[in-house]
This record gives sequence, structure tokens and C-alpha cells, in this order.
Amino acid sequence: MHEGNQAEAPLNPGLVFDMVQAHQRSAALKAAIELDVFRAVGQGPGDVASIARHCTASERGTRILCDFLVINGVLAKENGNYKHTPSSAAFLDPSSPACMASVAYFMSNPALREPYDNLASVVRAGRTSLEGEGTVEPENPVWVEFAEKMAPMMAPMAAPLGGVVLNGHSGPMHVLDIAAGHGLFGIEIAKQNPQARVTGLDWAPVLRVALKNAEKAGVQDRYNMLPGSAFDVDFGGPYDVVLLTNFLHHFDKPTCVSLMKKVHSALKPGGRAATLEFVPNEDRVSPPMPAAFSLTMLTTTPAGDAYTLSELTEMYTRGGFSNVKGHPIPMSPHTIVMGTA
Amino acid sequence: MHEGNQAEAPLNPGLVFDMVQAHQRSAALKAAIELDVFRAVGQGPGDVASIARHCTASERGTRILCDFLVINGVLAKENGNYKHTPSSAAFLDPSSPACMASVAYFMSNPALREPYDNLASVVRAGRTSLEGEGTVEPENPVWVEFAEKMAPMMAPMAAPLGGVVLNGHSGPMHVLDIAAGHGLFGIEIAKQNPQARVTGLDWAPVLRVALKNAEKAGVQDRYNMLPGSAFDVDFGGPYDVVLLTNFLHHFDKPTCVSLMKKVHSALKPGGRAATLEFVPNEDRVSPPMPAAFSLTMLTTTPAGDAYTLSELTEMYTRGGFSNVKGHPIPMSPHTIVMGTA
Repeated sequence: MHEGNQAEAPLNPGLVFDMVQAHQRSAALKAAIELDVFRAVGQGPGDVASIARHCTASERGTRILCDFLVINGVLAKENGNYKHTPSSAAFLDPSSPACMASVAYFMSNPALREPYDNLASVVRAGRTSLEGEGTVEPENPVWVEFAEKMAPMMAPMAAPLGGVVLNGHSGPMHVLDIAAGHGLFGIEIAKQNPQARVTGLDWAPVLRVALKNAEKAGVQDRYNMLPGSAFDVDFGGPYDVVLLTNFLHHFDKPTCVSLMKKVHSALKPGGRAATLEFVPNEDRVSPPMPAAFSLTMLTTTPAGDAYTLSELTEMYTRGGFSNVKGHPIPMSPHTIVMGTA
Repeated sequence: MHEGNQAEAPLNPGLVFDMVQAHQRSAALKAAIELDVFRAVGQGPGDVASIARHCTASERGTRILCDFLVINGVLAKENGNYKHTPSSAAFLDPSSPACMASVAYFMSNPALREPYDNLASVVRAGRTSLEGEGTVEPENPVWVEFAEKMAPMMAPMAAPLGGVVLNGHSGPMHVLDIAAGHGLFGIEIAKQNPQARVTGLDWAPVLRVALKNAEKAGVQDRYNMLPGSAFDVDFGGPYDVVLLTNFLHHFDKPTCVSLMKKVHSALKPGGRAATLEFVPNEDRVSPPMPAAFSLTMLTTTPAGDAYTLSELTEMYTRGGFSNVKGHPIPMSPHTIVMGTA
């Protein structure tokens, strides 16, 4: 660094400023959802006074918050009135079937945010500062909330996952859905293949959420529940397909390998395991969303990570699988990884 | 919203996901500064083990944090090693004269962040949830910290401001710098015009910071101090120039107008007042940085705002000024607004 050159360079403080202030974006979205701003905008007419009335909020606060949402692309402004962007209409207006407000709520859960208040000490320690094992602590109630709130984010992944996993297979089929959560992935298989039976494995209070979703989908007669920990419970089987969605990233590699071995031994010969994961490229810094997910694993788990395809392939291979392939889901940060027993 | 169309639209949860997680970016930058990551990267060789050793941090945490910084453009990664981007070298490495780490620190001050923990209630109330009058509470110690820490952000604005304000004027000149803070703007005038005398007005503990900077710049013999509140203290004068930098945005319009009247009466006929402000376009939602600044005023003041040029022009005009003009500072979110008494 040469001080002379530095002094001549045009300085733009924007980059640092923007990153320091990024927390405002999370707070603004949370406040807007809490105040029901997106419903108010959807109902119109969209002037500050009407929105403020709907939200029981001050006009100054409403105007400044709505302008901030426009700046961030989740509202539009025309002649001083606010209206939806396509994205805010689809994902943030409670009247939309794809509304993700509950996802935003889950993800801004104060119980999961605490490690960010002192991230330096988390980086020093190399593990979550949450109590016990963090989100992988047995029976952590956060997973009931995950099952209840994250469905709108995961629902769009269900159809593509079902398509990749079934790949035209019909006929009788037994599927184990490990860490079923909301249950949507197993339920999707049951919907796409009327002869598929699904066993959901998760903590008992979580499975109650999955069962409700199975009832909504009308597949409850082919939905069984296996309550407990994926590491302790006997899987039964043998199965044609095992789903392992949003699960491996919580654990270190040896733990994942031993789980893949257990999965392998619960599959029929030729049966398949499918994981749904955030899979960064081998450089670990792209694409942005899957790569950034490792920070969430640092703050919430003792040893989890966003694994690359080569790392996941190694886990599958050491678990006894062959023919391991990644299937990125278009328009999403998720990748399905399939392997054959 | 037609449910049929909605179901057919490709759904991309990325936008909401990104906004919900934006707070991670602020936390990561703060942690990296605290851990001295940017100095470690600047010194090389940039492998995880070396950086972790320098920062007394775990390798897992260091790798995940550094990858996150790369994703956010404030580090680069090459063959698994981390190195500076031009921006991180200039603005985040403590060995750079333009390092803004102290700015990031000031802006992540927990005392200013509290309103974001319950932004909905701030929007409801339409004013800061900080104690008393928030950051405009008399003698608020936050302004000593501002004066000490924000200089690297404001320093690049000083030369352009000095140029616009002097506009070739030399010879004897008396300048009043209201809310002088770090003092850099008045000091710059004194540097550019060796016959200029500057009076800095601010709370006494803040002026001690300005005086130190005047000494560093070698202009302390032409630097006087006027301690107190801009609203209460007698300005003295008459002055050739009054500077009002980063000040009007803290107050409502009537307060600004009465202050402009007081400024006007302290100026010689033909004297000029210059404000430095975040000035959004008339739509209040562009450019992003000046427009977004109004949220900071909502959370930290009872009635402040980021005023548009037409609003500032009205304040000047009501204060008795004419010939009011905006001068955006290139490569910065700031605008100088000048008016003639």
C-alpha cells in the first residue's frame, strides 16, 4: 500500500457503509411483516395515510419504512403511492399462496440470532455460541418452528425433488424421509406416486406437523411416523428410497459418513438416497447463497458446513454408494444429490 | 393476485432470503475488524492457518468468515488463499491511510442499534426509541465518538467541500463551522485559504477532538472554539461563510428554518451558507444511499429526515437566502447545498 497512490485514488465509502448498514434491511423486512404493511399495500390505495391507518402506525414512520422497502426492491412507488413489485406481491403479501412471511419470521428468530451479536467470539471458538449443541441439540424446539414456518420456502423444491427422485418410477415403493420436518418432500413422493408409502422420521413433536401436512395432501393413509433421532432409531426397511433433506449440513464429515452407511444398510440393493442441500462450488465462495450458508452452520452448530459436491460425493462413496450425481434445482439455491446403493 | 397464475410463475425465494439474512453481513464485517482479519490478509500469505493464527481464532471459523467476506466483495480468494480486493485494501486494512474500520465501529455502536431490535414499534411511534431526544439529546456522548471515529468517512468530502465553498475566493475570511464534530471541514477551508480564520461550534468535549485535528493540520492558530448548542449560543460574527455539515437532517423543518434564519443574521451581506447532506431525489427512493438515510433519522431522532433539494431550498429561502444550489460530490452519497445571504 503506497500512501501516495492511495491519496490520489477516488475514494468511495459506499461499499463499507452498505455492509455496516445491511442489518437495517433485515430489521425493515421484519417490521413491515409485523405491521402488516404488505397486506395494506396489496389492498390499496397505497398512500401513506391509508397504510399508516391500516398498520396503526405514524405517517412519518410508515413513509420512511415504505421508502426503504422500495429502495430494497420489495415495494414500488408511483406518484407518491406504494404498490407491489412482482416479488413482494408473490412472496410477502399474506394474500398470496406463496407468501414467505413465516419464513422471514423463522429466520429472524431471536434464538438463532444471538451468535451474531458476538460473531468474533464464535469465529474464535469455531462453533455455535448457542446453548449445548445449538440447533442440533436433541429435541430442540426450533425444529417444530422450522417445520411450521419454513414450508413456504421448501414447498417449491418439493415438485422438482419428487421428479428427480421418482424419475418415472411408479408402482409400489417404500420411502424413508429422514428429518422429515414439515414432511413436504415425502408427501410429494406419495402424491406423485399413488403406490408409494412414506415413513417420516423426526422428533415426535415435529412429526405432528408433518402428519397434519400429510392429511392436508390426502396421503395420510400412506404416511407412517418413526419418532426419534436419525442416529439412534432403527430405520427398519428395506426401502426403495431414502430422503435426507437439509440434514447433512448440520454435522461434521465423519458423522455424515456413518449416517450414510446406516442409510445404505436400510436400502434395497439398487435403492437410492437423495439429499437436498446448499452445495457451493469447489471454491466455496459461489454461488452466493449456498456458499454463504456455511456462516449459518458456524453460528448454529458445533461442526456443520455447506458441503461441496466433491465432499458430498466422498460421504456417499464412503457410505457404500455409487453413481453419485448432483441435480441443481433451477431458480433455487438448492441441489439434490442422488446416489445408488 | 390470481392463484392460478401464481402457481405457474417460477418462484425464487432468494430475494426475501437475502433480505432476512442481510444482518449477517453487518455482523461479519464487525467480527472481521475485531479479529484483525484485514491486517492479517494484507500481511499475507493468506492461507487459513496463518490468518487463524494471527487472529487467535479457530480454522473452521476463520475459513467460513473469510469465505463470507469474499462472497460480499471485501476479500478475494485465489487458489484457496485470501487476498485483498482494491476496496478492502483501501478501506479495511488498518495499514491503509483511508481505512474506515473506525467508521464501521461507530456505525455498529450498540447504543445506536437498539431501535432496530424493535423497529415496528419505532414505526408505530414515528420517532426514535432511544432515551430522551435520541442522538439530538444535548451533550449526547455519541458525538464525541462520531468526531473521533467518523473522520475517515468524512475526510474525502473535505477537499470537494472546500473547493465548492471557496470557489477561488482567497484573502481574509471568517468561517463559522456549526456542529463542527471532527472539525475537518472548517480545517480544510483554513488549509486551502491561509487567510481564513475558522470558529468551530459544538459541545465542548467534541471541540477537543476538532482542536486536535486542527493541530495535526497545523492550523490551530486560526482555529477558535465556540462551545455550546447551535440553537442557544450567540454565533458572533459577522461571517463570510457558515458551514452546516451533517446537521439539518436531525431536525424537523420548522427547526431547520429557524436555524437558517439565525445563520442568515450571522452572515455578512453576500456571505454564504453551505450544508453537507444526504439529499435524495424528489421521489425519496433514489439514489439508494441518501434515500435510505431517512431510516437512520427515524431510528435515532424525534423528527429528522433526509431532505430533498426542494425541501432544503425552501428552508434556505424561508431563512432569507437566495441563489440556492445543490452540488453533488462525485463518487459519494453527499451533496453540498449553497445559498447566499
